[in-house]
Amino acid sequence: MIIQFRQPNTEIIGELKEKFERMPKQVFSTETHMAVVGLDHYNFTARESAAISKVIPETPSYVQGSRTFHPKDTIIRLPHTQIGGKNFTLMAGPCSVESEEHVQRMAAVAREGGATVLRGGAFKPRTSPYSFQGLGEKGLRFLREAADENGMDVITEVMDESHVPLVAQYTDVFQIGARNMQNFSLLKAVGKTQIPVALKRGMSGTVDDLLNASEYIASGGNHNIMLIERGIRTFDNKYTRNTFDLAAVPVLQKLTHYPVIVDPSHAVGVWDLVAPMAYAGAASGASGMIVEIHDAPDHAFSDGPQALKPDTYLKMAQHVFDLRRLMDAWEG
Amino acid sequence: MIIQFRQPNTEIIGELKEKFERMPKQVFSTETHMAVVGLDHYNFTARESAAISKVIPETPSYVQGSRTFHPKDTIIRLPHTQIGGKNFTLMAGPCSVESEEHVQRMAAVAREGGATVLRGGAFKPRTSPYSFQGLGEKGLRFLREAADENGMDVITEVMDESHVPLVAQYTDVFQIGARNMQNFSLLKAVGKTQIPVALKRGMSGTVDDLLNASEYIASGGNHNIMLIERGIRTFDNKYTRNTFDLAAVPVLQKLTHYPVIVDPSHAVGVWDLVAPMAYAGAASGASGMIVEIHDAPDHAFSDGPQALKPDTYLKMAQHVFDLRRLMDAWEG
Amino acid sequence: MIIQFRQPNTEIIGELKEKFERMPKQVFSTETHMAVVGLDHYNFTARESAAISKVIPETPSYVQGSRTFHPKDTIIRLPHTQIGGKNFTLMAGPCSVESEEHVQRMAAVAREGGATVLRGGAFKPRTSPYSFQGLGEKGLRFLREAADENGMDVITEVMDESHVPLVAQYTDVFQIGARNMQNFSLLKAVGKTQIPVALKRGMSGTVDDLLNASEYIASGGNHNIMLIERGIRTFDNKYTRNTFDLAAVPVLQKLTHYPVIVDPSHAVGVWDLVAPMAYAGAASGASGMIVEIHDAPDHAFSDGPQALKPDTYLKMAQHVFDLRRLMDAWEG
Amino acid sequence: MIIQFRQPNTEIIGELKEKFERMPKQVFSTETHMAVVGLDHYNFTARESAAISKVIPETPSYVQGSRTFHPKDTIIRLPHTQIGGKNFTLMAGPCSVESEEHVQRMAAVAREGGATVLRGGAFKPRTSPYSFQGLGEKGLRFLREAADENGMDVITEVMDESHVPLVAQYTDVFQIGARNMQNFSLLKAVGKTQIPVALKRGMSGTVDDLLNASEYIASGGNHNIMLIERGIRTFDNKYTRNTFDLAAVPVLQKLTHYPVIVDPSHAVGVWDLVAPMAYAGAASGASGMIVEIHDAPDHAFSDGPQALKPDTYLKMAQHVFDLRRLMDAWEG
Repeated sequence: MIIQFRQPNTEIIGELKEKFERMPKQVFSTETHMAVVGLDHYNFTARESAAISKVIPETPSYVQGSRTFHPKDTIIRLPHTQIGGKNFTLMAGPCSVESEEHVQRMAAVAREGGATVLRGGAFKPRTSPYSFQGLGEKGLRFLREAADENGMDVITEVMDESHVPLVAQYTDVFQIGARNMQNFSLLKAVGKTQIPVALKRGMSGTVDDLLNASEYIASGGNHNIMLIERGIRTFDNKYTRNTFDLAAVPVLQKLTHYPVIVDPSHAVGVWDLVAPMAYAGAASGASGMIVEIHDAPDHAFSDGPQALKPDTYLKMAQHVFDLRRLMDAWEG
Repeated sequence: MIIQFRQPNTEIIGELKEKFERMPKQVFSTETHMAVVGLDHYNFTARESAAISKVIPETPSYVQGSRTFHPKDTIIRLPHTQIGGKNFTLMAGPCSVESEEHVQRMAAVAREGGATVLRGGAFKPRTSPYSFQGLGEKGLRFLREAADENGMDVITEVMDESHVPLVAQYTDVFQIGARNMQNFSLLKAVGKTQIPVALKRGMSGTVDDLLNASEYIASGGNHNIMLIERGIRTFDNKYTRNTFDLAAVPVLQKLTHYPVIVDPSHAVGVWDLVAPMAYAGAASGASGMIVEIHDAPDHAFSDGPQALKPDTYLKMAQHVFDLRRLMDAWEG
Repeated sequence: MIIQFRQPNTEIIGELKEKFERMPKQVFSTETHMAVVGLDHYNFTARESAAISKVIPETPSYVQGSRTFHPKDTIIRLPHTQIGGKNFTLMAGPCSVESEEHVQRMAAVAREGGATVLRGGAFKPRTSPYSFQGLGEKGLRFLREAADENGMDVITEVMDESHVPLVAQYTDVFQIGARNMQNFSLLKAVGKTQIPVALKRGMSGTVDDLLNASEYIASGGNHNIMLIERGIRTFDNKYTRNTFDLAAVPVLQKLTHYPVIVDPSHAVGVWDLVAPMAYAGAASGASGMIVEIHDAPDHAFSDGPQALKPDTYLKMAQHVFDLRRLMDAWEG
Repeated sequence: MIIQFRQPNTEIIGELKEKFERMPKQVFSTETHMAVVGLDHYNFTARESAAISKVIPETPSYVQGSRTFHPKDTIIRLPHTQIGGKNFTLMAGPCSVESEEHVQRMAAVAREGGATVLRGGAFKPRTSPYSFQGLGEKGLRFLREAADENGMDVITEVMDESHVPLVAQYTDVFQIGARNMQNFSLLKAVGKTQIPVALKRGMSGTVDDLLNASEYIASGGNHNIMLIERGIRTFDNKYTRNTFDLAAVPVLQKLTHYPVIVDPSHAVGVWDLVAPMAYAGAASGASGMIVEIHDAPDHAFSDGPQALKPDTYLKMAQHVFDLRRLMDAWEG
């Protein structure tokens, strides 16, 4: 059951919360809303009813992430950027951190294109155990330094509950990869921090699965969550690695208050399709975009075929910002 | 084998064609290219070699539709519009032709938004045999008149080989529906006409399937073909009817010279997702868009939930043209 | 609304039918059941109520095919075999009819393995228009003769409404291919005959789609329908052409009274997987099986890789009948 | 590169291994085979060549799991049963361990049906964080005791790297759930133990993904691996939770030496489809089966709808063993 109050009312909300918790029920509340898990009706007193504007009997399983419980957009504030609301955030960088010098060069390119968040993998989830697994802590350090030198924030993947404290020392945003979307132990671990989390949709994750997975983070107390659409697995994968499900962007925006980011690089997996899909992703209304860049894709340690070369990236980034400026004008 | 000639060379092309056809092999040729089906090498004479700039041993199964055989964009010229090249074509109208008066009203709205092609179904492929199956020839007549009064061209579905001559009397473009993408008899039938054909991708059609299906039309001698991406069937269909595979737009544009059109209405199936997906579709670089409109969606004879009301349509159409003007400027 | 009567009652059923048809509603009836399309409640008189044992308000869209309307298994009687009920029917033969002599040799092998229905394609739906398209009427004649000489019935594909009368002269069962599952014109055409129809599930056809498609046949008056599970299209097609959805067998058996047949050859597309999938298909409870055989698969005109050589087929067939005999004993 | 030796030859194998490791290359060897990762040709000396019967240049990424490197079936020996080879192993039990008394009652039923391995979840991966998450260590203890009292082995899920030592104290087989198929940290952690691991195929895991995931376990030194087919996610999930991909059984058996187990309960998710799919699964040639049972499915803590009641289970189990006895006779 979700209860919407006419206005912030600490007293009534406090009283009701106490009653429901004694039942016992799990209760979540904001200044104006309350959600009671596993309860679908209740006889309110006249005094309570007077304070309430609406009661929705059904609680979505991803209650804290839902717009019914929390109508206002979540805005995530990082040192150099904010994600969500009217802002459009560009995140760029190499797939893997390859060396100190390389990530610095890539950071400068990313920044030049307008990116405010630097991406780069130090722990890499690879299909084969015999492939390059990342530089580990050294990679985190190089990434952090490259971001700092360019006035950027850092996003990097954490693959493992036991790495959470280590990665936390270096990153501004934890990325949870598609393969770990339902690694519930990892979700609970990052949910106990206050570091923003970017949760990627799994290859076969439905929209509901993604929202339920995000609730594992929220249920730990961390509400700084953004969701990333990065393509799903379908029957057609000859010319693209995945199928970019852009309709998930407006669908998620209806259902949840978390910002939605698109990742055209992983969605298509081929560099010359990234730009058109970046334009499409920007036009779909996403709050931001994450792309992979590399100055020598043929020699990249991972995912070379999908990396944009600096020139292509800079042109694409300019077009993406052009598009968003045009779209901002529509709503003015 | 595909042979690319240095320049138009009727003599050599004629001689080679004769030789190959005597083998016997199926041969296709343009002014500058020749395709020989089922042949992967040949010892050319010195004279022949001198005229040839490149030989590609592999022939795609959709040879006439391929860019290797026919590098230049196909442009389809209709009385009031052209499809392909730099042009962006908007097609709009009701799902079904419901009455003379209604389709006229919808045609006026479509035209006001900038559409130059009027859509509307007179023969409807319905999942259940007990659902409304369309007005038949009467519907075709109403549709034609509504288009004529508004200076528009007509696109309408033909479901049946035996209906081809009838529908041909009324339409400017035959639409082949997703369920009939591999109805080879129907494809051959429209392939024997010179009326442009808009071939919709099947729900489980791969990009290659779509191109091979188009080849059934081309092999009959009709090269006025456009392809429509309208969403594919995937595991996630709770919030959208299909998954809009926008990456198929640039993929198809690499592989084929036929114009690619997007259909956001059928892709998502829910009206309030149509506008963001129309923007995304326009941004993906498609040559045009087809959308469904209705002034009273709740009373539509078919597919009401995905129809845009006139106001929403007009605003969306303006934004779509804005987007395309911006994108045109990029290439200038 | 589906009405179940206590016992056959021509009088009451006739009266009710007349009332409902005057509404006007579409009505279907058997000796003991009546379905009224688009009606979900009705105030029956006391006399009517006394004759009725149960009223189900919801009518499935595939009403005539549903078990709620028609609880008893449909049994299809062919000259040499019956399909459905306790019987297990084996259908075998080459993918394409290649020559008079070849199909006769294959028919003898098929018969030796216990098949009572001979399959073979005379009109072939091929992905590419440049592939072998079948022998046409000549193929039909060869197939018919081969079946007659071996005391077998014939199943062969009809791809085209205009071919229905021709194919009808030669076959005992019309096969509708997966690509034509929703070719509604073709379905209506075979629905106007009384020749049994084997309807294949489309590559992306849901169970409901298949049942709705079958209703197009039934709505024409032809109730001799069987359904074929032949694999669906999914994300994993590296080692098998399709994903064999064997759970569809018991699912369909709950929902419909039509016999369900499995086609392991098309499901997997690789001969050495056919036998294990044939055993699995038999064990799933299907009413029959259709398999492709060829004595020289490398030279087959179509689908060679999935054809069983005679030896493998004969061993497989024996095992399949063994399995079914064991399973028959379970129910005894 | 995979090298097959004419016969066990410790000397030559030792010498070659040293050479390749100095390159440096990662080398795996058995008595008769050697795999060198990332090497596709080598000039062998005459003496080496004499000892070698075959060189396969390509190494599958899941090299240790592949039949080319390790042709013989892996057989896993547990205290009360063996998995793989000619044996057919039945594993049964409740979805969740619910109480000491309940798991004991279910263990007795499982054993009566012929199961030699008891399943039961103490840590449950649930879609929602607000659902029952399992009894934890107490559940492990109850499960172990119930197995011991009935002379059975234990299989239970481990969800978390940090739980590996705890679960190791109680279980005979670690189960890795579908959602964790690519949780590489967890795979590495169980790979460092010698406790057998049952790896479930992910909802969108291809056959190759599953084999690559198993290689993460093998690369840690643990070769006691079995693979579980439990249904994949496809477009059709109205009547079944997943699509049971039974062709994966013979496909995996060609590619790998690890035993393949089927899980009809999770594949279909509805109890009355479990028995036909269990028969199909047994007939497909799997090495074993895992099913869920419950005496009061309506009150089960999790997955009640797919649990078999004791009577249904006992009848199904008898039929499954009947089928396998028949199939054993085929090969005799």
